This record gives sequence, structure tokens and C-alpha cells, in this order.
Amino acid sequence: MQRRMRILDSIAKPTDLHVLSVAELGILASEIRAQIIDTTSKTGGHVASSLGAVDIIVALHSLLDAPKDKIVFDVGHQSYAHKLVTGRADVFDTLRSYDGISGFPRPSESVYDTHPSGHASDSLSVASGLAKAKQLNGTDERIVAVIGDAALAGGMAFEALNYIGSQQLPMVIVLNDNEMSISRNVGALMKHFGNIRATSQYRDAREQLQEMLEGGGRTSNAFAEFGKRAKESMKQMFLPQSMIYEQLGIVCTPPIDGNDIGVLREMLELVLPVNGPVLIHAVTKKGAGYGPAEEQAERFHGVGPYNPATGTPLSQGGPAKTATQVFSEALVREASADGRIVAITAAMEGGTGLKAFRSAFPERFIDVGIAEEQAVAMASGLAIAGKKPVVAIYSTFMQRAIDQMAVDVALPNLDVVFALDRAGLVGDDGPTHHGVFDLVYLRMLPNMKVIVPSSEQRLSDAVHTALRLNGPVAIRYPRGSAEHDDYDDAIAPELLEVGASRTLREGDDAAILAFGRMVSRSLAAAELLAADGISARVVDMTWAKPLDEEAIRAAAATRLVVTVEEGVVAGGVGEGVLEVLSRLDSKTRAITLGIPDSFVLQGKSELLLHDLGLDAEGIAAAVREGIA
Amino acid sequence: MQRRMRILDSIAKPTDLHVLSVAELGILASEIRAQIIDTTSKTGGHVASSLGAVDIIVALHSLLDAPKDKIVFDVGHQSYAHKLVTGRADVFDTLRSYDGISGFPRPSESVYDTHPSGHASDSLSVASGLAKAKQLNGTDERIVAVIGDAALAGGMAFEALNYIGSQQLPMVIVLNDNEMSISRNVGALMKHFGNIRATSQYRDAREQLQEMLEGGGRTSNAFAEFGKRAKESMKQMFLPQSMIYEQLGIVCTPPIDGNDIGVLREMLELVLPVNGPVLIHAVTKKGAGYGPAEEQAERFHGVGPYNPATGTPLSQGGPAKTATQVFSEALVREASADGRIVAITAAMEGGTGLKAFRSAFPERFIDVGIAEEQAVAMASGLAIAGKKPVVAIYSTFMQRAIDQMAVDVALPNLDVVFALDRAGLVGDDGPTHHGVFDLVYLRMLPNMKVIVPSSEQRLSDAVHTALRLNGPVAIRYPRGSAEHDDYDDAIAPELLEVGASRTLREGDDAAILAFGRMVSRSLAAAELLAADGISARVVDMTWAKPLDEEAIRAAAATRLVVTVEEGVVAGGVGEGVLEVLSRLDSKTRAITLGIPDSFVLQGKSELLLHDLGLDAEGIAAAVREGIA
Repeated sequence: MQRRMRILDSIAKPTDLHVLSVAELGILASEIRAQIIDTTSKTGGHVASSLGAVDIIVALHSLLDAPKDKIVFDVGHQSYAHKLVTGRADVFDTLRSYDGISGFPRPSESVYDTHPSGHASDSLSVASGLAKAKQLNGTDERIVAVIGDAALAGGMAFEALNYIGSQQLPMVIVLNDNEMSISRNVGALMKHFGNIRATSQYRDAREQLQEMLEGGGRTSNAFAEFGKRAKESMKQMFLPQSMIYEQLGIVCTPPIDGNDIGVLREMLELVLPVNGPVLIHAVTKKGAGYGPAEEQAERFHGVGPYNPATGTPLSQGGPAKTATQVFSEALVREASADGRIVAITAAMEGGTGLKAFRSAFPERFIDVGIAEEQAVAMASGLAIAGKKPVVAIYSTFMQRAIDQMAVDVALPNLDVVFALDRAGLVGDDGPTHHGVFDLVYLRMLPNMKVIVPSSEQRLSDAVHTALRLNGPVAIRYPRGSAEHDDYDDAIAPELLEVGASRTLREGDDAAILAFGRMVSRSLAAAELLAADGISARVVDMTWAKPLDEEAIRAAAATRLVVTVEEGVVAGGVGEGVLEVLSRLDSKTRAITLGIPDSFVLQGKSELLLHDLGLDAEGIAAAVREGIA
Repeated sequence: MQRRMRILDSIAKPTDLHVLSVAELGILASEIRAQIIDTTSKTGGHVASSLGAVDIIVALHSLLDAPKDKIVFDVGHQSYAHKLVTGRADVFDTLRSYDGISGFPRPSESVYDTHPSGHASDSLSVASGLAKAKQLNGTDERIVAVIGDAALAGGMAFEALNYIGSQQLPMVIVLNDNEMSISRNVGALMKHFGNIRATSQYRDAREQLQEMLEGGGRTSNAFAEFGKRAKESMKQMFLPQSMIYEQLGIVCTPPIDGNDIGVLREMLELVLPVNGPVLIHAVTKKGAGYGPAEEQAERFHGVGPYNPATGTPLSQGGPAKTATQVFSEALVREASADGRIVAITAAMEGGTGLKAFRSAFPERFIDVGIAEEQAVAMASGLAIAGKKPVVAIYSTFMQRAIDQMAVDVALPNLDVVFALDRAGLVGDDGPTHHGVFDLVYLRMLPNMKVIVPSSEQRLSDAVHTALRLNGPVAIRYPRGSAEHDDYDDAIAPELLEVGASRTLREGDDAAILAFGRMVSRSLAAAELLAADGISARVVDMTWAKPLDEEAIRAAAATRLVVTVEEGVVAGGVGEGVLEVLSRLDSKTRAITLGIPDSFVLQGKSELLLHDLGLDAEGIAAAVREGIA
């Protein structure tokens, strides 16, 4: 297809935008949108937020002098336009692919990428460091953080605002307010015009107090001023929520149209010279400029290949059933039988499969927003009160709440179930999203039990079992297929014996102790080995904690023990097996397969697993070498 | 000494307070204070905050029906009065001692202790879970959280408030505003009357914007309302900061006297029946009722035994020099030579030894308040800008920022030094404060290097070395003595070779690979073993990551390899040594000594180490058994 010369094709570096008129910048923005749609329709990606942020990014680069001036993106999947105007237009079609450019800012990819953004709410903290350095150096670079409204609910964003305000750090915060997080807004902070103080319940509480005051008494004096303030507070009931930041010392603009480059530029020209923190409240539309994404912004948050004309997903022949779906069905089944079960997520209702739970038990569904610490510690309170909370969060995001798992749940040994979705390699999203540390941080916690189901049926069993155990139990399962077996959610789930493995294949030359979806690959490896005359036992360990010491003892009676896990080796469960072997004073050779000590980049998980030697071939090769 | 019958002695359970008059409650409060002073003058403890909270606790229990009604304490070292009125007065003199009652709420100790509080800012989240359960159950128990002003700066407290406000959860928040965190208030939120918006810099920024607006242009229209709001915002400049919570939907009272039981009771009677969240702003005085603690509230935050008449510390013959002091001196030395070094702490200026740094380099000192996530991610921004940030936080509190260490620092491989004070067992504060997980969560992170200095000199060398390496480096060192050696801060520090151990004693029967302060105990163990004719090598491993593989290989040539670390075995560095041994296909017996898989309670560290087999005797016994 032939195409006229685009303005985009003339942009080699972001300062090339300086010479463009507002009208030309508008054309450029349209070209960028067309490019994002063209590319992501083939590669998949984060479409809705990227389209919504195009105008903010174009306006910023038309005024900033990058890379001297710094933009810190919060959850950088909104940064596609930034990639396109910073010298990466020609490789943009490799987006999110193996060896391709990242779907997030990545400093090793470009000097224009300040920071490897991937976990929400950290941009303000990072930018505060840049601004403090600027203060110390007495230099004049400009610091801009671009953060979504949902990410502002994360505690660390508040910690940053609190510090930034108190120190009056020189930086501009662009609040990209698209009024929608990944699933939907939650929390009092969300929806800047949806002021919680306008709710009848809040007003009732206030009025109740006022009435009581009129009863007199000593305290009433103290309340004289209280009434006045309350009234003033009511008057402001419909002020934008961003006024909250004014109280932290951050000058806030009124909401402006974040999809109007002209308006954005005028505002930026006003605030960039200010020697202190200013927040521009830019209201944007997710999916702006692309009908299907505007209409189905949630589906277009993260999407696979689609027909660009219609937005219809292209069939990809995905797994019959994902692990998320199995978890979803199992949890609804359990919750139907046990009214104590409540489900908690952190802005990941769809991704964690809790939509079905919410439909079935709306009052028992809790979405705390992007606030993992609150999710876990609130579960503690629910468990203290006799509920059975299930906290469903991606493995990588649970890293935000390890301390809460330790102090608020594991120490008091409370009955909380942690459902860690996206455990192991997640594919295209890359290093900020791989869930490769959970086996380590779960295993270190006393009282914690950890189930690593190897198949659909085992995942269903795991949910059933975890809800019947005392103390905290974590279940970790992968993105995508849970590994097919004869799972049928009509079949009664089995109660798993704590710490009991299952031997799936007998063998005497070597014993492969496998965890999660490494089990199916280990079975395939055993097939390959059988062809070489090597008889390899395959054990589905099922539990990462406690470990099945009997199975390990039996494994030590072969010539080689191999552990296979989809997580980092350092501190992982393979080392836990070595510890058991050391207590048994085993002389049998042992090999721990897993993810080595470096960050794994993006690409299809199967490809990455192959590179890491965690597919059937790799496992078989390790056994061959170990036994030689 | 004879003593008249106290009201306190008649209190068997908290509801016994219901029948007391306000005057009698006042007498009870005085008795409680006298008891706290009497006990802590012998045991040490958290005196200032406990004294400040006495009246709040007495007022609460005089109205609540505990344990049906729940109080959740934030950083529960303020809860001594609660312990005294909930059936523990007769064992209060065992406070914080081995086998004694905890200095924090501990559910296993009493049904009146809702939650094992120890890490700041979690009370609101836990209480939100209790309140949500109450809503679901339709029951009428009352939920109260007691939180200090400093803890409100923690991100998770904000996450909780955001959720509590949006859901209008029925609970009372008592803000115990003593205007002082452990060191001093930081952050815009602190000091409710010290409104940041009253600062000249904020006003300048606002005025600058207003002036620019008068220049006209298209954006000016959007600003028509902005000006109005700014004016309104200025009007409220001197309103209490707690008004911020009104905007989250939480009804806030005006500041009341939190040391006046009568006022507190009247306010509580007003707000306890409200069906929604209410925040009582109680202003208290740290150390209230005890002159020395009022005057030196910071020293009386956590204090050892003292003369109750004068408040003067009793000489305890502590270490000549603590690890904290060595770190403090080393950092000032390094910062004198390198202007890029900045120091960051999270409300632990005194505890981490940064006071000296702050005095010497005030502009390079950063205290973000109780906000570990901000501390670590801000360090990321500082490092991106070419600074050399040193983040000094207790090992246990660093658990709050593991994700930030991973994503914001380790992934981009930034030059950030983490100084983890209070690593290992901390003694009297018990399980919420032991720093026993750090070797695990540090070791799992790619790009991270971890130094475990074994002595004063090595700690000094470690600081020197860490600041000269590329990428993140963590140094972990214990509470109290860094282990005496010929340390002299005038002696030039040595640059440690990455991953290089030091063999301190030769031996061929067994090799003890020791980390940190386990080195001196291992040397003593080797002495004991020598008496039995066992020749034990002792290696100061120095680096937990990377490990000295040559030293491990050499150790495997003895009859027994023993690792000794002051941290949990599960995922710890001992398992890392086993992993190296497995790669070497060593057949040598190996034993990993460390902290087993359960939470360690309180008591003098030496006593706890003895129980855990981590003293010279225990190590020697393990070697004897292993070699037998």
C-alpha cells in the first residue's frame, strides 16, 4: 500500500516537533494514532491508554528539550507515541516482540526513556528524585511526570505527593485523567467530579453529628468551629477532587481537555517555568480517535491482534481454558457453598477472573483500586472477623505487599488465600510483568503454604483445598493455559493433602521434581529421554511449601535429582529441595533448573522458556548432561 | 515499698472501666502512667508514645465493649495502657523480656489484642476489613483504629482512607496527633496546622500563575474558574490539614485535647454511633504526665532502663561502638569526598545514624517520613540524575519497598546503596522487628550485590566499596555492636573485592562459611572444636551475593560444609551455597544453620541466638554432629 509522506516520517528526534505548528502537531497526532492502530492490530498491545495519551505526549515533546528534559511515565504502556517521536518509528512494528522494542519505556533501549515503568504509581517518586537532583545541582532541566488517575490511588503516589508538596520540588505532574483504571474506578479519590461528599451517606453522618451537637454539653464548645467548617466543606462539595493536592502544597490547574494539543501547550507554557510543583489536570478519553477502542476501552486496555477496521479480535487459537478462567469458576463454586468467602482485587477484576464472582456475589466482591497493600492488610481484618478472604493479584504486583503478607497475615497466621495469577513468564509485557520472584518471597514466610498446581484440575483442587486450610495459603498459576487435562468443573474437586506430591511417571535413572506448568514439559522431556534409553521419573510436586520430603528422599535414590520451576533459582524452591537433600545427607547429584540471575526480556513465553532451557528439550538435555 | 490499693488493681477486664466516673478514670490514667514509668525504667520500652496515648485508651475502654468491639493499634508500642487494663497488669513487669509479654499487641497473648501491630500505617487497612465484615454480617460491634500522625503519611494508610471513604465503612479513626514521628515530622501532611499552603514558595507559584493568566489568550478562559478556586483555596489556608480527609468522604472532628478523658469520651459518644467513617483529631503530648519524657520525647521513643526520678539512662555497658555509629561515620567520611552522595531515610534519622550526615550536609539529607516506597523510588530518580543515593532503613521496614528495589532500582541497574540496619535479630521488639528476611529478598533480585560485614572495619570498608560499584548494593548489619575489631575511622578504608571471602582460620575437618556477626561466633565455635581435636576452617564470606565460589569449592574439600547466617534458612544464603555445591557436584555433607521456619519471639538477641543454635556452642554442636 502506497502512502503519502507523513510528518511522522520526518521526525528523527523529539525536538523536531518544536518547529511544527499546532495544526501540524494535530496532523502528527493523527498519524501517530494510525500507526499505533496499524501496529497493535498485528502485535497486540495497550491500545486504549496509548491512544488517549497521544496529545499529551505530542504537546510535551513540542515544548520540552529531551533528553535533557525528562518525562517519567507512570505505567509506561501509555508511551507508544513517545516511542514513535523518539527515533523508534522505523522499528515500531517490532513492538513487544522477542528482540523487538518494549511495550514500556526501557532506558537500555533509548536515551529518551527515563525509567523502566511497569508497576503503577511510581512515577512521582522517581520524578521527585530527579527534581531533588535538579535542586541540588542548580540546573535548569525540566521534570515532567505523566500519571493516570487510577495510579494516583496507589499509596506510593501519595507518599511522593506528600514529599513533593512539603519540599516544593520543581516539577510538573500531568494527571492523565481518563476516568478509568484497568477495570473501573474505585476509591474515594477516583472520578474527580464524583465527589464522595455528595453522597447521601456522608451527608447523613454529618447531619447526625450536627444534630447531636445541638444537644449541648461541654464538647459542644469545641464544636462551635466544627459546624462552621462543616458548612464550608459542604459548600465545596462539588469542587474537583484534585483540590486535595492543593492541601499538600501542589498547585493544581482546573480540568482541561487533554486531547487538545493547543490547550495543553498553552497550559504547559504557563506551568513549566514555575519553580515548584504544579499538577495539570488533563482529562483524556481512552482510545481517543479510534472508535472501537473508545467504545470498548476496557477490552482495548491490553489486547491481542485485531481487525483494524472493526476492532474485532483476530482468532488466535488460544487455550481452551485459561488458568484465570479455571480459578474464576472454582472460586464461584466455593463461594456458593461458603458465605464467608470474600474476594479482593486491586484494579484487576477482569484480569484475575473475578467478574463472575462479582456478578454472583456483588456484596462480597472488593476492588480496592491500585492499592495492593490495602488489599492484603484489609484481608487480614476480614480474616480476623471470621471471613475467608481470597486476594487475587498478579504475581508481579503482589511484590508491592510482601510486608503486609508477612506482618499482617503470616505472623498472626490468618486464613487468607492468595491467588497469584500471571506467575512465571508472562510473555510480551516483559521484565516488569514476569512473575518470577513469588516462590522466593512466599517461601521465606513462616506459616505460609504454597500450592503450584500443574493443570486445570489441580488448580481447581487447589482453590478447594486452600479455603479449607488454616493459615495463609498461596496458589500461583500462569498466564494463559493452566495446562489441559480432563478438567470439568462439574466434577467434585479433590482435597489435596498438604505437602503431598504425585508421581506421574516412574523412572530410576533420574527424578525430575517439577512445579506448575513445568510438569507437562518434564513429562515431555521424559518421553525424549526414554527414546535415549534413560528412564526418568516425573513428580508433580504440587506444593512449593511444605515440600514433600518423602518424594525428595525417593528421588535421591535415583542417579540424578532435577528440580524445574518457573521462577528465579536464587532463593527458589529448587534450593529448598537442595536443603532437604542436605539434611538427608544425600550424595546424589542435583540440578536446579529455573530462571537464572538476570531479568528476562519480552517475547512469547514458549520462546523464552526455550531460551532458558525450561522446555522439554532443555530439561531433557540437562538430565542427559547430569547423568553422564 | 507499701502501696495503697490502686484502681488499676481492681481492673480485671476493660469493661470494668464502664462503672468508673470521669474523675476515677483520671486517677486510673495516673496510675497507669506510674506503672508504665515504673516498669519501663527497668525493662526499657517505648515510653513517650505510650504515655501520650494513655487517655485515649482509657476513654476508649470506658465506652467500648471489648473484645466484641475492636481496637486496632497502629504501631502498637503505644498500647501499654491497653495491656494494663486488659488483664495483664500482673505480668506487665515482664514487658519485652524473653518469655514475657510483648511490647506490641499480640493476638496469641490476649483476646483483646486484635492484630500484631508493629509496622506503621497498617491499622486503617486492618480496621477496614473488620468494618467490611461488620457490614456483611449486619452486626453491631464497633471498630476503632488508633493511628499516629506520622503513620498517616505512609502510603497504605492513604490507600485505606481512600477505600474507607468511598465505601463509607462504619469505623472510628482516632488520629493520635502528637506532632512528632520517631525523629520529626516530614511531609506536607504533617503538622496539621503547619499548612504548606501558607509557605511563601507555594504562594509565589500561585501568584506567578495568576499573573500569567492576566496576559490573556485562549487558555485564560479555562482559567476563569481556576482563579476563583485558587482564591477559595487561599482562604482555607489555615484550616486544619485533616480537612484533606473530608475530601475523601471521612467526617473529621476539629482538633480536641487527646489527653483529656472527659473531652475524649464526649466526642467518642458522639461519633461511635455514626454509621460511616469518622476521624477524631486528638492532639496529644508525647510523654504526657512524665516530665523527662515530655522534654526529651525523641530519646524516650524507645529507651533502655532509666532512673525513673530523673529519666537519666542507666549505664548498661553497651558496645563501645554500634554498627549504626560505624555506618554513620563511614558515610560522612565518604560524603565529604564525594558531593554526589545523598542520604535518604524514612523517619529514622536517629535510628539509622544519619544525624551526623544531616548536620554535615543538610541539603543532601532527605527524610521522606514513614514512606519506604517513596524513599527507594526517589533514590531511583536521584541515581538516574547522577547522584549516589544511600537509602538507610531498618531491614524489617525495607520489606515495604521490595517491589521498588526490584522494578525501580535493580531492573535499570542503578547505583543505589541500601544500608539495612537492624538486620538479624533485634531483641526486645520481637517478631515484627527482626530483620530476618532481607538476605532472601535481596538475593532474589538480579543485579543486586549484598555485603554482610562481619566487623566494624568491614562495615566501614563495605560503605566505601558499595559507593564505588556500579548497580545496586545492599549492606546489612546488626542492631548493636558491629563486632569489635581494630576499627579506627582514621584508617583508610579498604576496597573490598566483589565476591571475595576471607579465611580467618584454617582447618581441614570442616569449613564454616559464616556471614556477618555469625563470623565471631563461628571463630569461637572453632576454638571449642579445637579442644575436641576437630580442625574447623572459618571463612568470613563477606558477600551474600555474589558468593565466593572458590571458597565454597575449597570448603567442599573438607569433610563438612556448614553455613551460618542470621536470617531465615528458607531462601537464605545457605541455600545459595548449596546451589553452588550442587553445581560443583560436591558429595561433601553440608549443613545450613540459620533461623528456622517460624517467627522468632522477643528477648535479648544473645539468648535467642542461643536457642536457635546460632551461638558458638550451637555451631560447634552442629559441626560435631555433622562430622560424626
